[in-house]
Amino acid sequence: MNRIARQYAFLTECLKLAEIQRQALLPTSRRRENDAEHSWHLCLMAITLAEHSNAPVDLTRVLRMLIIHDLVEIDAGDTYAYDTARLAGQHEREALAADRIFGLLPPDQGAELRVAWEEFEARQTPEAKFAAAVDRLQPVLLNILTGGEKWREHGVTRAMVVARNQHAGHGAAAVWDHTLSLLDDAVARGLLPEG
Amino acid sequence: MNRIARQYAFLTECLKLAEIQRQALLPTSRRRENDAEHSWHLCLMAITLAEHSNAPVDLTRVLRMLIIHDLVEIDAGDTYAYDTARLAGQHEREALAADRIFGLLPPDQGAELRVAWEEFEARQTPEAKFAAAVDRLQPVLLNILTGGEKWREHGVTRAMVVARNQHAGHGAAAVWDHTLSLLDDAVARGLLPEG
Repeated sequence: MNRIARQYAFLTECLKLAEIQRQALLPTSRRRENDAEHSWHLCLMAITLAEHSNAPVDLTRVLRMLIIHDLVEIDAGDTYAYDTARLAGQHEREALAADRIFGLLPPDQGAELRVAWEEFEARQTPEAKFAAAVDRLQPVLLNILTGGEKWREHGVTRAMVVARNQHAGHGAAAVWDHTLSLLDDAVARGLLPEG
Repeated sequence: MNRIARQYAFLTECLKLAEIQRQALLPTSRRRENDAEHSWHLCLMAITLAEHSNAPVDLTRVLRMLIIHDLVEIDAGDTYAYDTARLAGQHEREALAADRIFGLLPPDQGAELRVAWEEFEARQTPEAKFAAAVDRLQPVLLNILTGGEKWREHGVTRAMVVARNQHAGHGAAAVWDHTLSLLDDAVARGLLPEG
């Protein structure tokens, strides 16, 4: 296979991202969001909120991570943020998926995207911290917009949301502070137990 | 409203992109793709195929255009590439939509994204030409992957596909050439009339 044909094989396989259902509901249709829609919305959040990153970031690197960060779920499935049993084996499942999916690309390019995915997972660089912040804040926003239905279904409290997502503050403290005020409001409106 | 609250109002409104159905079908579920999924897949194509751009491009500017290029369809709706009647009023509908949707942002940021959208529409810069190429090649790929069902439904021929999409070659000639070979194959397999 020539180079473009390998790239097209990868791009074709990755269309399956649109078939991976997440827990959070979309506010208009109230259907479950999928990973492709989620990944796009994270990119939109990143270009809109980049000015609030704690440290200056190279936006191309942030966007590259957000575009590819969930591709491993094509094989490994979505792991709900509050499902502690499934969270345990998540990294091993996802590493195998990364081998296969990035392995569809020409080797130099597959290695480059694999490195970007590992950078995202490690959350050490300013770009990865900001990308991870956006990834955590987006489902919180969806839950607030849909009246906390999925939080109540899964017995999630404000304390659990904060414990699970507070590292968003390491990437974008001002946006995390704004989110905390939205959570206070959700508690006051009875959408989320204090916990 | 403070700055982050305005940005969140924009990000909330833009979730409606996931409710805009396109014509092309996704290969696994064979349901219609929506604009949010499409926009994400264009970003993935851009980072994968950037090396084939006819001219060097600033990838951040390409990605910014692709992330926002279809937001106007929240108000203006999707216009099918081969619907010549609806194509006539498309620009006016979309300009009004851009006023409203980018107007949700803080003014400096709304103006910046509006400029990016206009750059995409004008297809004059290397970044806009490459972004437009990807935007045209993606539905062709989906049609090929789903056996040309939507092409036959709308009476589309190979000649129409080439006439409508050949400017993709102004952005990425090598990828357009690859697409022409895929179209030849689709004609040979009886998925697309020569026209």
